[in-house]
Parts: sequence; structure tokens; C-alpha cells
Amino acid sequence: MIIVTRAGVTRDEVDHIRERVEAAGLRTHLSVGEHRTIIGCVGDETLLSERALLSVPGVEAVHPVLKPYKLASREFSPTPTRIPFGATEIGGEEFVVVAGPCSVEGPEMMAETGARVAADGARGLRGGAFKPRTSPYSFRGMGEEGLRILAHVREATGLPVVTEVMDTRQVELVAGYADVLQVGARNMQNFALLTEVGRLHRPVLLKRGMSATVKDLLLAAEYVMSQGNMQVVLCERGIRTFETATRNTFDLAAIPVLKRETHLPVFADPSHAGGKRHLVAPLSYAAMAAGADGLIVEVHPCPEEATSDGEQSLTFDEFRGLMRGLEPFAAAVGRTVASTGAPVPA
Amino acid sequence: MIIVTRAGVTRDEVDHIRERVEAAGLRTHLSVGEHRTIIGCVGDETLLSERALLSVPGVEAVHPVLKPYKLASREFSPTPTRIPFGATEIGGEEFVVVAGPCSVEGPEMMAETGARVAADGARGLRGGAFKPRTSPYSFRGMGEEGLRILAHVREATGLPVVTEVMDTRQVELVAGYADVLQVGARNMQNFALLTEVGRLHRPVLLKRGMSATVKDLLLAAEYVMSQGNMQVVLCERGIRTFETATRNTFDLAAIPVLKRETHLPVFADPSHAGGKRHLVAPLSYAAMAAGADGLIVEVHPCPEEATSDGEQSLTFDEFRGLMRGLEPFAAAVGRTVASTGAPVPA
Amino acid sequence: MIIVTRAGVTRDEVDHIRERVEAAGLRTHLSVGEHRTIIGCVGDETLLSERALLSVPGVEAVHPVLKPYKLASREFSPTPTRIPFGATEIGGEEFVVVAGPCSVEGPEMMAETGARVAADGARGLRGGAFKPRTSPYSFRGMGEEGLRILAHVREATGLPVVTEVMDTRQVELVAGYADVLQVGARNMQNFALLTEVGRLHRPVLLKRGMSATVKDLLLAAEYVMSQGNMQVVLCERGIRTFETATRNTFDLAAIPVLKRETHLPVFADPSHAGGKRHLVAPLSYAAMAAGADGLIVEVHPCPEEATSDGEQSLTFDEFRGLMRGLEPFAAAVGRTVASTGAPVPA
Amino acid sequence: MIIVTRAGVTRDEVDHIRERVEAAGLRTHLSVGEHRTIIGCVGDETLLSERALLSVPGVEAVHPVLKPYKLASREFSPTPTRIPFGATEIGGEEFVVVAGPCSVEGPEMMAETGARVAADGARGLRGGAFKPRTSPYSFRGMGEEGLRILAHVREATGLPVVTEVMDTRQVELVAGYADVLQVGARNMQNFALLTEVGRLHRPVLLKRGMSATVKDLLLAAEYVMSQGNMQVVLCERGIRTFETATRNTFDLAAIPVLKRETHLPVFADPSHAGGKRHLVAPLSYAAMAAGADGLIVEVHPCPEEATSDGEQSLTFDEFRGLMRGLEPFAAAVGRTVASTGAPVPA
Repeated sequence: MIIVTRAGVTRDEVDHIRERVEAAGLRTHLSVGEHRTIIGCVGDETLLSERALLSVPGVEAVHPVLKPYKLASREFSPTPTRIPFGATEIGGEEFVVVAGPCSVEGPEMMAETGARVAADGARGLRGGAFKPRTSPYSFRGMGEEGLRILAHVREATGLPVVTEVMDTRQVELVAGYADVLQVGARNMQNFALLTEVGRLHRPVLLKRGMSATVKDLLLAAEYVMSQGNMQVVLCERGIRTFETATRNTFDLAAIPVLKRETHLPVFADPSHAGGKRHLVAPLSYAAMAAGADGLIVEVHPCPEEATSDGEQSLTFDEFRGLMRGLEPFAAAVGRTVASTGAPVPA
Repeated sequence: MIIVTRAGVTRDEVDHIRERVEAAGLRTHLSVGEHRTIIGCVGDETLLSERALLSVPGVEAVHPVLKPYKLASREFSPTPTRIPFGATEIGGEEFVVVAGPCSVEGPEMMAETGARVAADGARGLRGGAFKPRTSPYSFRGMGEEGLRILAHVREATGLPVVTEVMDTRQVELVAGYADVLQVGARNMQNFALLTEVGRLHRPVLLKRGMSATVKDLLLAAEYVMSQGNMQVVLCERGIRTFETATRNTFDLAAIPVLKRETHLPVFADPSHAGGKRHLVAPLSYAAMAAGADGLIVEVHPCPEEATSDGEQSLTFDEFRGLMRGLEPFAAAVGRTVASTGAPVPA
Repeated sequence: MIIVTRAGVTRDEVDHIRERVEAAGLRTHLSVGEHRTIIGCVGDETLLSERALLSVPGVEAVHPVLKPYKLASREFSPTPTRIPFGATEIGGEEFVVVAGPCSVEGPEMMAETGARVAADGARGLRGGAFKPRTSPYSFRGMGEEGLRILAHVREATGLPVVTEVMDTRQVELVAGYADVLQVGARNMQNFALLTEVGRLHRPVLLKRGMSATVKDLLLAAEYVMSQGNMQVVLCERGIRTFETATRNTFDLAAIPVLKRETHLPVFADPSHAGGKRHLVAPLSYAAMAAGADGLIVEVHPCPEEATSDGEQSLTFDEFRGLMRGLEPFAAAVGRTVASTGAPVPA
Repeated sequence: MIIVTRAGVTRDEVDHIRERVEAAGLRTHLSVGEHRTIIGCVGDETLLSERALLSVPGVEAVHPVLKPYKLASREFSPTPTRIPFGATEIGGEEFVVVAGPCSVEGPEMMAETGARVAADGARGLRGGAFKPRTSPYSFRGMGEEGLRILAHVREATGLPVVTEVMDTRQVELVAGYADVLQVGARNMQNFALLTEVGRLHRPVLLKRGMSATVKDLLLAAEYVMSQGNMQVVLCERGIRTFETATRNTFDLAAIPVLKRETHLPVFADPSHAGGKRHLVAPLSYAAMAAGADGLIVEVHPCPEEATSDGEQSLTFDEFRGLMRGLEPFAAAVGRTVASTGAPVPA
């Protein structure tokens, strides 16, 4: 922690600041400038509260030196975390694609979607049974019936299931069906939920909140990890800005920043980031080029009839095209991708 | 709903779009332009999904005509909602100030704070027993013990208690102690929590999320109201922008926008919006001038020792100064404020 | 300047950093922590480049200690700057309102507007002769003819003229007619223009850019002042955020932040900030309550026929209502406002 | 243009709105709903002002149907624009890299940089002679001497020169030396400057403003084109958001959005977007994967001694690594890139 004093700070104020810091067990070093004094605090920074120090008379600024996340940091684990996922693993050599509809709408559409995306190279199945919807009057998901449908499709296809959990009371229920628990953007700082999924031995896909910084995202992961669950996949899905040409603003640079800061795998969600079907492929290629470990993509048998997110869902043929399109980029980054090589319909 | 087609839309595409709309029970009107066609859809707009329409071939843009919130709208209730609150009411003639520390830290500091803020005109007591903290290593509140302390101070002072609930499993517990349940900014789109507090007969203070639009805030209120609980107080507390001179960006204009759009009372939280003690008074005066119905303000016996948010908490003397400072503005807007008129210490 | 090293910095790297700092004539103090080293740099900080230091091996963060603006800072001039303005002054006891149409559209409408706003208490006349328009196909102003019209209305009404300059080549021309030169939001970082208006002895109204921080705004003022022109009025007019309910997001808190940081007067532009007629009054009252020194407001004889910004322009009657509405708030802040006290038409 | 009325609009108000629209020469179609009426306006939309209509009584919303830019739109020119650039062209099959220092600092460093980047595949040389700096106390460029140095290096290397122009009075001077005139982010809405460079027969590199939408960027291009200069290269360089982990937020999705909306070539500036050396390569690869036509990249012989932007400048070896790294991505997108294939130093 570094403390910068106001111009014209008094000697007594400086002494008082030092006492507070030293009372917490840290040592202080002074650099006395013409106008301001800099107080370097050496020791266990977590014993000091940055914001409380700001209210001590004479203090103008406080700069923490250590990163606020520990378990999620590269310094904690220099080797990348790999998370077993069905027949493959997330964070390894393979670039992993998870696909499926926004919402589970029924057994037939899920069975058909699962079969098709599996055939074209998806390694996991997505689908929402509990849906966070901005309006209370929108379709909010099939609930447990949706979970059962997902489990049936897993049996049929072998694809592990990724599905969202929104409520601490449902964690056990969802964990009874899901292979990976998704925490959505709107719940990224639902700390009770983070704590609860942190108590499980089940991987968590943690989506970045719309106004969350990279640091906030890593602290949310730290919540999960501090409970003992180290299997967290981070997911960039766009942030909220003034730009309205896209649904959100895909923060592509967050991918290499995260890969440098943390050992956790990083996914991208090109469907929510762009919000338009024609943006899914270019955003996916870019995410791979920037170092992402995989994608979660929306695919629907008939997007114009989807109960949610139709305009950003790929058709089956478009999904096959995406998987084929990923191949040369996978080669460029030295990874594999599970496209079957089947021809894309014109 | 108004649908605008792409340039060069075909006759068949237009027919298909009309069929979809009419299948949902609405009527369509066509305005055929040189390049594009406009399809006006008349009838119950909630039967159509804007985003699904966007994926129908030939559609370029969809403009909803009706507001997505109903119970929260001025059209639903032209008269302002008034919510009984201790000895006064929120949304009435009195400008209501709720004050107290960020976190409940113990019985003595709460008793002292309650007594002092009550003496200086606060009409409600705030204090967090369950605290949402960005880092898992920060102090997260005293839990039920904190709630018990709040209840004791209510007995001593007569001040109703406003405190946060963060978890669906705690709603019943918190409601056993609190007069008003606060849903914090990070949980504004925790739809499970909104639904749960909507089932109670207890007022809800709903804080605007950091990246929530005014429309999102009203839809969050609609979640609560659609469950039957119409006693919602909205609270502007700043949004997240690029500006770093303040903790958040206080969206002052949201106050008159909300007052025009909804019958619900609107509060401001100048402590979180500005994030600095010296900004609390000017933001409070401005909020009152712009039409707010009240404030929720952080006050602490010794801000530099606060476990959280010290640099934005007022001292007791500063709080008295704030209450006195509000008086002439209350006169200017034709409202009352419960300052006692006691002199402010120099 | 404070330099924080990376974890695991080597002794040689630290030595190299110190050499660089000391070569610039500053002294260094070391605080060696367990993981990182803090290097305090004492002396003339302007001799070091923060961003260049960031590329020196071993450096992780650089925190400047001094503010980057000098002439604009409170420390440079503890007393507020007052700028003569027609019959009054800006930054003094009177809260000064400048009013007029977005664009000068012709002699009659300007004469009528000037007469009416003067009668109701405006102390200055606004009107654009050169208009920055997002589209090249929009009306871009009457040019010099517009300036001549403004000068005629000044003669008739005695109101000093505030008008925008957009091009370094027009500075002399505009200064031949205007009492105050306005630099618009889109040109706030047009450094050539700032330098040019800095060479005049004419007050400058400097509007905050849509993505400018408070610090950026003060540095833009510093550009003008560093050329010798100390008569700068800052103007908060809203920033660009994700919120679409208003044209811009009025950053009310910037007003008290600026009043604390600088001795320059601070105006607000409630017309552009809110972008809607019904928001002008509440934003104006709030700006005054938060400490602003004046307003610049759009008024038009017939807003629905305005060539630009009609939906945010007040009618004459609405302007009279605004001036009357400001009175009690002026009393609350201990200032005067030049309303004539004439009754507001129903 | 589509006009939506307020709930409870009167018959007279609707008639008045229609009269206004029809007076401008457009036809109107009515869709009368239960609460609101929709007025479709067919004809030349540019004859109506959206914002003026908003102030007509009874109007609640106005939705333009046509795009506000014409010359820049795909509809105007379905084939991509190709701009001759030295030995190659921008917008063609080759992915074009322009490289050089942020600022021209002297003849030796420019000669050395030009030789090295040319040898490693750069097709153009960048370097600022006139620098927009946030602080008036920062280095602001060598001016005309810098331009002369750039011209010398062009002679030596054959690389065309891209350099910034900031002032309408300097356009002729800069055009005397430069092959492409750069309009920087801070001047993207300096409409006088856009108009002036629009009068030249010289390509313009137009960088996106920090708070500019994609639509704003296209309208800025339209300014240039409406003067007759159709040779505009758009450049995504990051927007300003709440995220502080990067200098700006690289809006990757703007690249495919622009490629769909316009026939103009699209560049990316990974140096300013990320603001950190280690982000340049991943952002460059991603930009290529998303469809960009080229890059403008900062390279410096000794970044830690750069007068500006040192921490985001590549060394010569890093630049060679970047060019080699681009090769497989070029293959993936079916383009060429002019890397020489020389080995990258370890």
C-alpha cells in the first residue's frame, strides 16, 4: 500500500497516518517531497482497508500494491488450469465449443439440436432451464423439466451439459443434472450464489457482468475458489457501453489480459456479445486468435421461432459453417478443434 | 410494434412477416416506401417477441410501441404511491432521510448512531448486516446478530429499519427484523430475489444496478410488483462510466425521468453515487431540487475506523449540517424535512 | 511520482529504474517489500514521463503525485475567478443565465428571442452561427451573417453574445462579434483551436467533451490558460454512457468536483444534458443546488420549427417559468438570479 | 420516418403532425391502435428533422427508416473500395501493415525505424509531426521538420507516409509531404477539418473517436466524401469505457459491422486500443480474423526512451515477430501479408 498525502499535510497528520498503518502490523517508509509526502507501507496489505485510509485526515490517495485476488492469479499457479469436460478438457490443447439453444423449449428440439451440434463438432451442450429475463412477462424457462430434457440429450449424445443456475436454493437441484454450472452475467456479483457454487465439486462457467471490470471478474472467481472449488471457466460476453450497433461491446482484449493474469481457462460467448447472427463467426475467429480456450454459442433448429434470442442463434447449417471456419484459425494458433470436416451446405 | 423491412425486401418476405404477426392475433397496416416497407402491428404487443421478429427474413428493425412495464407505469396509476414508513410516509409531502452506517459493526456504535441521526431528523435507520463485497476477503457483515442489533435500535429510537437482503434463503429471516428490505445494485437483476421479495407485504428499496438503464430499473420493479408487492421505492445511486473522479456517475436526470414514468417514490443515495464525503451535501441538495422523495445516507461515529465505505460516510456533525442544509431547498420545492433546527457545530 | 515494481524484480532492474529517474534530476527513496519494491521519486515530476517509465523493465505501475494542471488548479489561485460579462460577472454572487436558440435562423427570430429572454432575466444571449452537425446534410449555420445578427441583437438588448467557434481560421472573425467564444464538446480536445483562443483576450466557454473526464476538461482549460488567456468558463453538458432515456448523462457531481479542484467558474447546459424540454427545469435547479455559477439554455420562439434541437428548446413562457423557478433555489444557495418577478403564464 | 404518438393523442394533434409531414412533401399512412397511433411517412426522409418532430405536440417517438449516410453505405457502392498505397493497395487482397513511432523524434531514429519495418514487411510508415497531447506541457511534435524527415525516409525506403493533421490551416502543408492524411480520434468530429481534407485528392485515415458510435464514424466519413474525396480508410482504435485494464476498449465487433455497412476499407490500431506492448499481437491477429484490411502499429527503436506512448510501442524484434505471427492468420482468411519470412530473434 502506498499513501500519498495532501499538499500542506502537517507533521501530526503524517504521524497519525503512520500510527494507523503500524498498528495494523505493517512498516512504513517516508519520502518527503516539497509539497506532499509519500508513505510506503510494507507488510500484509490485506490488514489495511484502502477506503478507510482515505478518510484519515491528510490522506489524498491510496494505491494498493498487491493484487486483490490470490487463488485466481498466475502467481498462485503458473501452469494453466485444465478442467475435464466429457471426452475432452477445457484449458488444454483442444479449442472447445459448447453449443445449443438459449432456452430448452421441449424434448424434440433439444434432441435434434444435440444430435446435430454433436455431429458437427460441439463438445458440450448448452440450454437454459432457468432463464434470467429482463421483463417478468417473458418466458422464464421450463425449470426442472428442462433439466431432465438436458440429461436425456446428454445420454443420447454423450455431450456434457452446461446450464445456468440463478438461485442459491436451486444449486443442489441444478447440480443434480448439470456437468457445468453457469453463473450468468447478471449474477456475477450475486455473492451468495458464488459462495454456494464454490462449495460444490463441479466446474463453474462464470460469465462477466455487463459492468464488471476484468478485476471484478477475477474477484468473482476468487469467491468461488475461496470456498474450495478451483474449477472455474471465465467467459467474456461483452460489456455495456454507449455503442448500440451491437447488443453488447465484445471486449476482445479482456481475453489476452485474462490469460496473462490468471491460470483459469477463458471462453467467449460471441452470441451475446454481438447479438446478431452474422457477427458470430467473425467474433469466434477473433476470440480464438486472441487466445480463448473455447466458445459457448447459441444454435437453434428454427431461430425465428425461438422463445428467446432468436436473432443471435445460428441455424444448424450456420453452425457447421462456423466449425469448419474455425479449422484454419485453430491451425494458426496451434490448437485442435473438433470439426468433422463434413461439407457445409451452400 | 412497428416492423421496418430491409431495402429490397421481397413481396413473399413481407407476406411471411405479416402472417407471423397476424398469427399472434394482431392486425397489420402496410406503408410501402420506395426502398423499404413499414409494417404497423396493432393489438396486444406482448404476444410478439421483438428479438424473434428480428430473425425473420426481410426484417431490419423492430420498434416496440408500448412500454414493457405496466404496473410500474404512470398510466397504471396516475397518482403517486405513498408508502407508510414509521411516523411518516415515503412519497408524500415530507422529504424522508434514512441514515446510518454502511455496516452494522456492533451494538454500541449502532445505538449511538441511531440516537444521533434520530435527534437530527433522520426518519429511518440504515445498516448492513449482510454485505455484498467485491472481494471475498473483505468484511461481509455480522449476519443475524446485526439484524438483532438493528431491531434494538429501532426500539430505542422509533426509527424503522432499512437493511439489505442478498439471498433468497434469507428473505424470511431479514423480513423478520426489517421494515424495508433493500435490494442492492448488484442484485437488481437477481430475478429470483426480486420474485421472492415480491411475495412479501413489506416495502422494498430497489437500488439501480451499475449498468442498468432507467427502463431496466422499472422492469426490475415490475418483477416485484407482478408478485403482488406494490410497495417499491426506487433508488438512484450512480452508474458505472469512464469517469474516475467519483466512485460512480450520479445520474441526476434519472430522478425527473423516473418521476414522469412511474408513480413509485424515488430516492437518491449520495454516498455511493459520489463516494466522497464532501460530495454528499451537494448531491443531496441537487437530488431534492430535481424531485427526489428522499435520501439514504451513510453516517458513522468515526468514519476512519469504519469497516467499509469510511471515506463516504458523514460524521454526526456533518449529518446535522446536511439536515440543516436541506431546509431551504425543501422550502424551494414546497416540501418539509425533519431537521430539528439545532445549530451545526463549527 | 511513485513507481511500483513487478513481483520478482531484480536488483539490476531496480538500479536501472533509479538511474533513469535520477538522470532526470529527481531523488529516489526505496521501500523494499517482500514481493515488490516501491520507488518514491521526489522533485520536479514534470521531467518524467509516466508512460515512458511504464516501458522500463521491471516497472509494473506508475502513480503521479502532482496534478497535471497547474494554472487551472485551486492551488494556483485560491480565490475564485470572476469574469466580467455585460452588466454582471460570471463566477460572482449572481447566478448567470445565458439563453437563446441553438442556431441563429434569421434576424426576426433572434430579435424576438433576445428581447424576450432579456425581459425575463437572461444576462447573455446564445446562438450558433457555425454549427457542428453530426451529418454533413444537416443545416450548418448562417456563418458570418449569423454573427452580424447576433451583434445587432446585442445592441438592441445590451446582452453580451456567446457563440461557438469551430475552426482556427475563424477565431479572429468570431472574436470580432462575440463577447464570449464557445468551444463545443466535439472540439474540447481540438488542441489547435484551444491554443488559438488562448491567444485572445476574450473569455472562453469550454464545454466538456462527451468522453472527457473532469481531468481532461481541466487540461483543456490549461491549454487555453497556458497561452495567457485566464478567462475560461467550464461547462458540464452531459457525457456519453449506455443510458438512452436522456440525450446524454448529466454528470451533476462534476460541478462540486470542479468547484473544489479549480478556481474557474462552472456552468451547466441542461438543454444538451437532458435533451428534452421537460428536463431543463429540474436539471437547472439541481445544477444551482450543486454549486454551479450559471446556465446556458436553449430557448426558441417556436421549438417545433427549429432547424436544430427543437425538442430540447424552451418556449418563451417556459423560459420565464424557469427563471421564476430558480428564485427560491438562489435564495437557498445564497445567490441572486435576475428574474424580473413577472408572472408566468398558465 | 415513423412517428409514434403519445397515449391519448387527440385527433387534432394527429392532424397537425400529418400536416407538418405532408408540407415537407412526404405521404403519411396511419395505423390507429388502441392507445397510440403510428404514422408512417413515405418519401424523402431527409426533408424531415427527427429532433424537430419530437417537439410537435402529441409525438412520443420518431424512428428514422433510412440510414443517415449515403456515399459511405454499401448500398451506394456494393463493391469494396480499393485505395492505391505505395506498391500495394488498401482494401485489396493484401493485409496492409503501417508501422513507425508515435512521434517523429529525429532523422536517425526515423531512418533506422523505416529501414527495419520495411525490411520486415511494413507497407507504409507512420510517425507524428503534429501531436495531439492531453496536456499542454507534453511534447507536441517536431512540426514541419518532422514532415521533412518523413519524406526523406520515404525516399530511402519507398514506404508511403501516413501522418496526422490537426488544424485546417495545416492541411496544405501536411498534404505537401504525406501520402495519407490521418485524422485522429480527438478530431473525428472536427467538422471543419473533415471538410478541408475532403477537398483534397489524397487518402484519409479516419480514426474512430473515443465516444463515437459506428454510425458517428460513418457520418464523419460521409463529411469527407460529401466534399468529393472518396478515399477514406476507417480505423477502429478503441473506445472509452469503464474498463481500466486496457488503455481503451477495443471494439472488435465494429470491424465486421463496418465491413457490412460500408464499402470503405477498415483498419485497426492495436497499439492505442490496448495501450500495452503485450496486447499488440493478440489484438492484431483478432483484427485480421474479424475481417480488417490492415493495421497501423507503433514501433520504436527504444520504447523506454520514446517521447510518447513508449509502453505500447513494439521493439524491432517484436515487430518482426508480429509480422511472422500474422502469416498463418492471413492464410486462414485467404489474404496475403508482406512478411519476409526472416527468422524472429529469440
